[in-house]
Amino acid sequence: MNPVLLDSTLRDGAQAEGISFSVDDKIKIALALDELGIGVIEAGNPGSNPKDLEFFSRARSLGLKNSKLAAFGSTRRKNVDCSEDKSLKSILDAGVPIAVFFGKTWSFHATEILQASLEENLTMIKDTAAYFSSFGKEVIFDAEHFFDGCKADKPYAMACLKAAMEGGAKTLVLCDTNGGALPHEVQAIVKEVVDLFDATIGIHCHNDCGMAEANTVMAALAGCSHFQGTFTGFGERCGNASIASVIANLQLKLGIECVSPEKLGLLTQTARVISDLANIKLSERQPYVGRSAFAHKGGMHIDAVVKEPMSYEHTDPELVGNTRKLLTSEVAGKSAILSKIKRICPHLSKESPETEAVLNRIKELEHQGYQFEAAEGTIELVIRKQLGKYKPLFTLEKFRITGEKPYSLGSSAYAMMKITVDGKTEMSAAEGVGPVHALDLALRKALEVFYPQISKLRLTDYKVRVMDSKTATASKVRVLIETTDGIESWATVGVSEDIIEASWTALVDSMEYKLIKDIENRFKAYL
Amino acid sequence: MNPVLLDSTLRDGAQAEGISFSVDDKIKIALALDELGIGVIEAGNPGSNPKDLEFFSRARSLGLKNSKLAAFGSTRRKNVDCSEDKSLKSILDAGVPIAVFFGKTWSFHATEILQASLEENLTMIKDTAAYFSSFGKEVIFDAEHFFDGCKADKPYAMACLKAAMEGGAKTLVLCDTNGGALPHEVQAIVKEVVDLFDATIGIHCHNDCGMAEANTVMAALAGCSHFQGTFTGFGERCGNASIASVIANLQLKLGIECVSPEKLGLLTQTARVISDLANIKLSERQPYVGRSAFAHKGGMHIDAVVKEPMSYEHTDPELVGNTRKLLTSEVAGKSAILSKIKRICPHLSKESPETEAVLNRIKELEHQGYQFEAAEGTIELVIRKQLGKYKPLFTLEKFRITGEKPYSLGSSAYAMMKITVDGKTEMSAAEGVGPVHALDLALRKALEVFYPQISKLRLTDYKVRVMDSKTATASKVRVLIETTDGIESWATVGVSEDIIEASWTALVDSMEYKLIKDIENRFKAYL
Repeated sequence: MNPVLLDSTLRDGAQAEGISFSVDDKIKIALALDELGIGVIEAGNPGSNPKDLEFFSRARSLGLKNSKLAAFGSTRRKNVDCSEDKSLKSILDAGVPIAVFFGKTWSFHATEILQASLEENLTMIKDTAAYFSSFGKEVIFDAEHFFDGCKADKPYAMACLKAAMEGGAKTLVLCDTNGGALPHEVQAIVKEVVDLFDATIGIHCHNDCGMAEANTVMAALAGCSHFQGTFTGFGERCGNASIASVIANLQLKLGIECVSPEKLGLLTQTARVISDLANIKLSERQPYVGRSAFAHKGGMHIDAVVKEPMSYEHTDPELVGNTRKLLTSEVAGKSAILSKIKRICPHLSKESPETEAVLNRIKELEHQGYQFEAAEGTIELVIRKQLGKYKPLFTLEKFRITGEKPYSLGSSAYAMMKITVDGKTEMSAAEGVGPVHALDLALRKALEVFYPQISKLRLTDYKVRVMDSKTATASKVRVLIETTDGIESWATVGVSEDIIEASWTALVDSMEYKLIKDIENRFKAYL
Repeated sequence: MNPVLLDSTLRDGAQAEGISFSVDDKIKIALALDELGIGVIEAGNPGSNPKDLEFFSRARSLGLKNSKLAAFGSTRRKNVDCSEDKSLKSILDAGVPIAVFFGKTWSFHATEILQASLEENLTMIKDTAAYFSSFGKEVIFDAEHFFDGCKADKPYAMACLKAAMEGGAKTLVLCDTNGGALPHEVQAIVKEVVDLFDATIGIHCHNDCGMAEANTVMAALAGCSHFQGTFTGFGERCGNASIASVIANLQLKLGIECVSPEKLGLLTQTARVISDLANIKLSERQPYVGRSAFAHKGGMHIDAVVKEPMSYEHTDPELVGNTRKLLTSEVAGKSAILSKIKRICPHLSKESPETEAVLNRIKELEHQGYQFEAAEGTIELVIRKQLGKYKPLFTLEKFRITGEKPYSLGSSAYAMMKITVDGKTEMSAAEGVGPVHALDLALRKALEVFYPQISKLRLTDYKVRVMDSKTATASKVRVLIETTDGIESWATVGVSEDIIEASWTALVDSMEYKLIKDIENRFKAYL
């Protein structure tokens, strides 16, 4: 049987601390999941979050190619007929083909939280499944707290599944709602359920013990064929199984094809798009898709990976659309730096004194708080400066920024700047929202006079990291800037106790990196 | 047998992207691990990182109460006698009781990466173990790539373990170096090893498939009694098993006592201290110790947890020194806000129109980009303002900041400020490293004239988050400030497109929150 993936980023993911999706965000995430080929997108809980209905009304006309939409809710309330339960009605109003509903399967939850009798809870489950079935919905039953339920009263938990099936649910999803189950427990219980029920059995794991992805793998081995999670794993408390990891593990480790091999190559990109839209930083260490997932720092590891990738990589990063990274750092050997040096001075070798000098300079800057691992623009400039392959594009004579509150003119901040290029002086001024913005605009304005191509550059990210929290506002800050010219992107870094100074350093690097490259390429055309 | 925990934050953790420990950092981390009662601290690889020798020479006199220190390295080089191998010598020079060395157990690695014959590799392992043993060291053998090795050539991998034992290694650690092994594989292979060898069997897992902690649990079930990892999980690529999670899982789920119950209560604090020292943000979602690990956002979850914590918590957060959090957000019910409202106006209920008004105001601010989940200071002020229980401490007449480069006077930035309190005007000026620093100093200076207790407050963290990276330096930023008076800490938040404005908002809140509380408590003394 083909595995079904249900991504709940838009529903369970929305319950994560720090997440607040706009309808536009949700639409974009749905499109990304569709593009990847995710079978079911659980897109909201219209009963508890009315904003979700707006999403569903827009989503119905999206023309998704691969994914079906699902709306999520709970069983009917006790003592209320399904047809009179507003929450159930809102799921029908969502107008999507799949209804997912959760019901209690842990006796304690039925009696203590719902304050329903055990029999009543069974009826609620069966009624709700039957109600959605009667409207032609494909019904998925999320068996809440199933593993805890089995530990407390297995016959009752099983009876809940039976009730859902009798009501017409085609998929029974075993949820480790509290995230406390261990892999061997999940495997054993899933196996029992698979043997007992002639239905599609699904798994929904939380990560409170760090087991979400492992439990999902164990469930697959025990016979599950429906897999739930959120794409990068964010969700209530410690989050859910990451669908990105689930896909990669099932497909690359267990040979269960979840998406086509070409689509698998979109995995990393999709994870990054979704993280950006959610404004939740994707962990660098996220399995398969994190920026450090295939990053090698130890010198011995780097040397070995360059020789034989499989020596320190469990899979080929390209299969999931990620890339290998050889990091520049004090514990690294020279290989990583050397490949960068060779791009600038092909004749230098590992043993050249110039290579040594570059390494020393990098260590010195790292000591000051620089980190070059994510700042390829700055590291190239550091190497160029050290090798004498650098000429500054301009000389700063002076800049001055001012800001005030309340503000008297149109903007809160101003920058004035004077630069010199080949003996010619240019002055510029700009107003902005905040001093860094004003500074960025003034610098561009002055530089464009000499280098018109600057107008094509656009900052795409600006990150500030305080490095030593002990002295707070007088701490060193590291500013990381990402810039694009519409074709390629690069990052640069600046470090200072003054956020303006650190931003300035990174801004200047971001422009110099690109212009120096352009100038070189122009000359290359004459060779 | 008592389990042994080996924490490798200072060695394997140092191989993570973005990590660069100073010797001071390492000392502080070692002390925190010792305090918690970790058996072995693997503190460095003196052969590849000479800075580590400085650490060891200082660490020897630390007087650790619970932990033994270990130095790490590899087998002797091929064709070199142990006594002539500098790297082995540096491990002895570390002067610590335990020597950990890794050797190849995957035939491919021996022949292709080391370019040694299979027999030679066995001799290298045995010789190295014997060498360290002869100096009275307790020897731990890290069987590199053991699981991949078993899949390729199990008899050879087992022969490597035997060689280490023959050389005198007392602990054989099975390493999933590339992180590609799955829980059922780890369980099966560990079981075989435990049955075959009369030694302490250990496990060392990487997280490339998201399995590190699950594999460690499965290894424990299969008979391992030595557990390696890094405290919060950072390490090469996707990182290692997190020792914090390993301790909690073994102790709370499997009943294997790793530390005393009182020490278990230090788990969260230790994880946060180590993250701070490493300057690697602890994931909010980190099992057991993350700030969101016991955070509840869904309204139904909040209602249930308030009633019965076990309904949505797999364990009691206090056991690991963490705390429950009821989040304020659009999907939350009113319970979380209500408990905050009640602290200020005990007579208000869930149904009061005032409660509704507060909720609406919070939604409005969230829409502007505020997030209150981590900013208890600001949320309290929002509630007070809405309920009419707020009186500003001062009125800002004007501030103005300037910055320049190169700078002409002693500092790069200046702030001038004019405030009014009860009709009295105070002007102040301050210079700082950067405009936010200058602003902070000027505000304190002016406020201290009226509120001397301000002098006790100290900012402990200052974080900037860009919320919409599309427009980069003109994006909205969210500034989060943490402040302490030496006894308690609180966080406040400000949002604006202007970093100065956002910082200002958070700064003002940080002082008002505390002073309003102090004033109230003073009055309480008269009641």
